[in-house]
Parts: sequence; C-alpha cells; structure tokens
Amino acid sequence: MTPGAGRVAAAMPNLVLSPRIRTSPFYPATVAAGASAFSVYNKMLLPLSFGDLEAEYRRLLEGVALWDVACERQVEISGPDAHACAQYLSARDLTELTEGQGKYVAICDHDGRLLNDPILMKLSDRIWLSLADSDLLLWVRAVAAEKGFDVDVCEPDVSPLAVQGPLAEDLIADLFGDDIRAIRYFWFRETDLDGIPLVLCRSGWSKQGGFELFLRDRTRGVELWDRVMEAGQRYGIGPGAPNHVERVESGLLSFGGDTEPDTNPFEANMGKFVDVDTPVDYIGKGALREVARTGPRRLMVGLTLESDGTDAWPLSERTPVFQSGAQVGSMSAVVHSPRLGRVIGLAQIATAVVEEGEQVLVETPTGRVSAAISALPFI
Amino acid sequence: MTPGAGRVAAAMPNLVLSPRIRTSPFYPATVAAGASAFSVYNKMLLPLSFGDLEAEYRRLLEGVALWDVACERQVEISGPDAHACAQYLSARDLTELTEGQGKYVAICDHDGRLLNDPILMKLSDRIWLSLADSDLLLWVRAVAAEKGFDVDVCEPDVSPLAVQGPLAEDLIADLFGDDIRAIRYFWFRETDLDGIPLVLCRSGWSKQGGFELFLRDRTRGVELWDRVMEAGQRYGIGPGAPNHVERVESGLLSFGGDTEPDTNPFEANMGKFVDVDTPVDYIGKGALREVARTGPRRLMVGLTLESDGTDAWPLSERTPVFQSGAQVGSMSAVVHSPRLGRVIGLAQIATAVVEEGEQVLVETPTGRVSAAISALPFI
Repeated sequence: MTPGAGRVAAAMPNLVLSPRIRTSPFYPATVAAGASAFSVYNKMLLPLSFGDLEAEYRRLLEGVALWDVACERQVEISGPDAHACAQYLSARDLTELTEGQGKYVAICDHDGRLLNDPILMKLSDRIWLSLADSDLLLWVRAVAAEKGFDVDVCEPDVSPLAVQGPLAEDLIADLFGDDIRAIRYFWFRETDLDGIPLVLCRSGWSKQGGFELFLRDRTRGVELWDRVMEAGQRYGIGPGAPNHVERVESGLLSFGGDTEPDTNPFEANMGKFVDVDTPVDYIGKGALREVARTGPRRLMVGLTLESDGTDAWPLSERTPVFQSGAQVGSMSAVVHSPRLGRVIGLAQIATAVVEEGEQVLVETPTGRVSAAISALPFI
Repeated sequence: MTPGAGRVAAAMPNLVLSPRIRTSPFYPATVAAGASAFSVYNKMLLPLSFGDLEAEYRRLLEGVALWDVACERQVEISGPDAHACAQYLSARDLTELTEGQGKYVAICDHDGRLLNDPILMKLSDRIWLSLADSDLLLWVRAVAAEKGFDVDVCEPDVSPLAVQGPLAEDLIADLFGDDIRAIRYFWFRETDLDGIPLVLCRSGWSKQGGFELFLRDRTRGVELWDRVMEAGQRYGIGPGAPNHVERVESGLLSFGGDTEPDTNPFEANMGKFVDVDTPVDYIGKGALREVARTGPRRLMVGLTLESDGTDAWPLSERTPVFQSGAQVGSMSAVVHSPRLGRVIGLAQIATAVVEEGEQVLVETPTGRVSAAISALPFI
C-alpha cells in the first residue's frame, strides 16, 4: 500500500427514520447537542457522533463525556423465581450475587452459542439484564414460560445514560455525594437526582472509568441530560458516544460485530466469566464444559497493521484474514489509534495462529496488508 | 394549519456502517444502482430509496420494480418434529398446509402478544419463517429446546429479492416459463435460474402483485440481481424498495412500526389469520381465544387528515391521536397519497371510536390536525 494514498472513508448513507426504530428519552437533547451520525442498536437510534470525533475521543480519554446509551435496553425479571430464572439463563454462578451488585454474564443457547453479553443487576425486588444488541426479551420470555418459572418478564421503563472518562467520578460525586466513590465496579444504588428516579451503577462501555445512570422515568430524559451537562461544565463535559477507537484500543467486545451467530463465549474472550465447574445448572452448560475441555477453535485478538493512519477504514462487513494462503479468521474493526500512532484492529483468529507477533495478511479494499497479532487490550 | 406553510421533512441523519449491521448479498448491486437511503431491519441494511421516490412509486404502481429484501431473514426448522414445532409456534391451524404452500401467520407469546408476522413456508424437507423485524430465531430456539422438539433450528443461507408491480408476472414468466402464472398467492416452487438455486414464491410486501426470489447461495446475489434487471429492461424495470406510500394506501402492517410490544394479532387486523376454535394447540391460544371472545381493545385503521400535501412528514416516533380531549390512540405512519390526493395515515385506535368517518385530532409538529377515520385498505 502507498502511504497516504488516501483510502477515503466510505460516505455514510442516509438513515430513514421510522417509529419501528425507537428514539431514546434523551433524543431531543442529543439532537440539540448536534448529534449527526447514528447507528441502530436494539431497534433504537444510537447517536455515534456529534461532528468532531477527535474532540469526542480526547474528552473520553482526558475529561468526561455524556453518552445516550438508552439502546442498552433492559429485560426485567421479577416474581418468586426471578433469581432461579436468571441463574438458569446465565453461564455464570450467581449464588453469591447480592442486592446492589451487577455481573457481566454470557447468555448462551443450549448449544453454548452466545446470545447476548449483558450486565445482570440484582435490584431489591427484581433482576435486570442490560442488553447488548439482540432481542433477548424473546429468549427470556420463551424460556421462562416453557420451563415454568413463576416470573414476570418485561421491558421496564429504564434508559441508561453513561458518564464516562477520568473526571466522571468527580462529577458524579458532585451530583450524588462523595460516598459514591465507594461503589465498586458493576455495583449500583437505587437512588434519585433531584427527584428523578434512577439506578446509579459504576459501569460503561469504556476503560476510562465512569458511571451509568439508569433513568426510571422516560418523561424526564432531557431534564436528566441537562442536569448532568450543567453540573459537568466545570469539568469541560461534552456530548459523546460509545467510542469506536477507544473500544478497539481497550479490546472491548461488540456483540454482533465481533461475534458471529455460532460464537461461544470462550471464543469471545469471555471464558473467565463462564463457570463450568459449578454445581448450578444453566442453559448450555454441557456444551460450554466441552469447549472448556477441548479449547476454543478461535479467539478474539488484536491486529497491528502495516499501514499509515490514512488507511483505517470503516468496515461495512468483516474482512478476511489469511496466513500462508489460507483464511485463518476475519477482522471486525479497524481504526487509527492516536495513542499508539498505529492502525489497529480486532479479529477473530484460529487458535493455532493467535500467538503474539504472528504475521497475517488482511484483505482491504485495495489489496492485502501485513499485520501482526497483538494481545488485548492494546492499552 | 396554514396550507403550504411548509412543514419540512426532517433532515435524514447519517448512518454509521458496522459489521454488526449485516449487508445483503445484493448490497453491491444496490449501491451501484444508486441506493442513497437505508433503514436497518433485522440487523441488516435495507435500501429504501434510490434518489427518486416519485419514480419508484410509479414503477411499483405501473410497471415492475426490483427490491433487495434480504433483511426478511429466515428461520429454518428441520427434523422429525419440524411441522409439530411450527404448529406450536403459530396461531393458525396448519393441518392442511402442504408442500409448496406458504401462509401468513401470527407468532405470539404465551400471553397472546404478537412477536412477528412471517410467511411460513413448507418446503420438501423443512419449514421456513420469512421474518418481519424481530430476532425470532431466539424465540424458536428457546421454545424448541425447552419443549423438547426433535428439530434443528438455524438461519439458512437465504436472501429474498422481490419483483413487484403489475408487470412482474410477465417478467417472471419470461425468466421461469409461463407455467409460473399458475402459482397461487403464497405458494412457491423450489427451482433455479440459470443454475442459481432459489425458491420462487408469489408474495411481496405490496398490493401490486409480484414474486419473491429466495436466493439460496449468497455468493450469487449480484449475479441474480443483474440477471433479473437485464431481463426486465423491456418492462422498464428499475430499482425500488418496500414503498412507504403504497403500503399505507394498501394498509399493510409494518411489525414494530404499527405494533407496540403488547399488541395482539386482532389489534393488528390479523384476526382472520388466527384460529381459536381449532383442536390444535399453540402458544398463546388461551389468551387469543379470550381476545376473540371479548373483542380487541384497539384496531389499526386509516386516517384521512385535513391537510394539504406539504404536511406529510416522516415520523421518528408515534404521534398521539385525540378525541374529546382524551387520547384514543396513536398514528404510526403518514404520507401524501398521489392516487387519493390526500394526506393519509395509519393509526391504532380504541375500538370504541373506529367507526368510519369518526373525527379525531392528530398531534403534529405544528399543532393538532383534524382527521377522519377511514377503513383499510384506502385503495
């Protein structure tokens, strides 16, 4: 490849709006803040940029950013069997899970295929699954009804708003008091902000720290957005979104993007969250125990491409990765990392060739590019 | 409202591409044909316009149009219990369903809520559900596994391509022979076109007639598109897409757009496809029988608005409908109908006020507009 040859980012197509694709309670505030590019996630509009990707990246890395992530839709399980049902659905031992605690769980089908990787939260009287991009409500309702659990399964009125970045904790402490600093990762509190009901959780889809405010009244979305934005002025807060560059640097999994329909959680690097030696029973346990025994066929790894910064390109689909003429996997994301000064990607690669430093070739719009396997996270 | 005051269509935002949102095998051909605006449907890109909405409408009404509807993803059920499993999932008696036949079915949950409204097709050795916009694969897999059906459930390599319009039959006869004219609505043949394997079905999401070609080899999408386009030149074929104006005129249901999470099939005007007095058992039968007995609380109806053509606007969300100061429903689509010369919409309205001619008020961006209830279809 010729450095600087200018593989231009493909023009973004227009998105036709429709009631079939739900807007978030924060939508009017994001539009007012200049949201200009969206994705669709869980059949909701997800704002992905406010027109200045560099500033949005810096804000996340050095300051604090406000993200509309209402598309992380919730499945709520309540009733006498709520905990038992949640356990049966989750490839993780939830015996010790206690009120106010969340856990990152793999939800798998009976063959061990990953269906979603939500945060499972145990509230005082119910359980929430804060979803990645699949209609898991259908799965949970079917399992609960056919298995005969005495539960009610619904989508509650809950809309997460993420406050992310190194200054997020200071801002959240200003709003909720200094004792929030004691909240551990994925733990949460049921609370309110000036009467706006919410759950405050230390979570968020970045490695820069922060919280998510799970708004419990969709009529108050703009009010909550404005309140946080106002309090964040002293920290230079601005609008942002789940950041594609940072998430690649941090090796964060995008379900449905980095996974394929038959990916199991070990292949998605979620092995450490899967309990196969527990006495509890859950869907897919037999299949997952077998994967644990034989080892996954592929893993998610990083790629460092022999390419200058002009060559990162938006992927509309996975691109094949080769070694010795044979396809050994595919790449699911590629970005220019400002912190590394390199073009890096995420790929799902056959276990035999995932050693760090191993050389592969990546198919690109203008030919094959050399790349080296990197451990995750990059940073 | 001031006629001509110019409620301008909201600018369409940009859509960020990602491997999380799958492209269709026809995607390169649609881009080459000028696809400029997309939606996301079943986590796939759905091209919705090629830049000339008027020409696309005329082509569908008077000629023939080619639509990439690969986003109508399939769920395939095979194995010894395939028919029994399909029956248990469907709120319709499938006893008489025979090979080569399709039926429009309501898939409901145990409380009778509509989960999808697919075409169910009985092939020689398997069953396909050609989906509307929900991850029904999750529902089917969960039910099959927990209920213990001896089936395999997967998404096969199938990509529908629609040929729609009054000249579609002539074109399809040119390609497949005159005996295709005998295929009845929703019936199909397993066949091929110059060796490209496909299922040819008389179906499609318009009332203008036509066929869908269910491509069974995703590597041959562009080849199939080009072959049909070439043969269609003598009929003036051009690219198109599921047409928002025609579907409103025809009163065709858009699942997820015209339905809410708790809508039952009677409320979606699918009552005539729901069998509650059959001896066969299926999910939701008890709840649906109760709805049939008491009558649905709301129905989908047409609205004819007191508005000139400048006032049709793209809806990003449902808009409330009032009568005597109380909300009686909501409107889910609104278009200017060239054939009627009126602004018309689709709405879900309380059964008490769905008489034809009944007057209501519709909330719009610039105030409330008078509208009259109309029977469906409009045309």
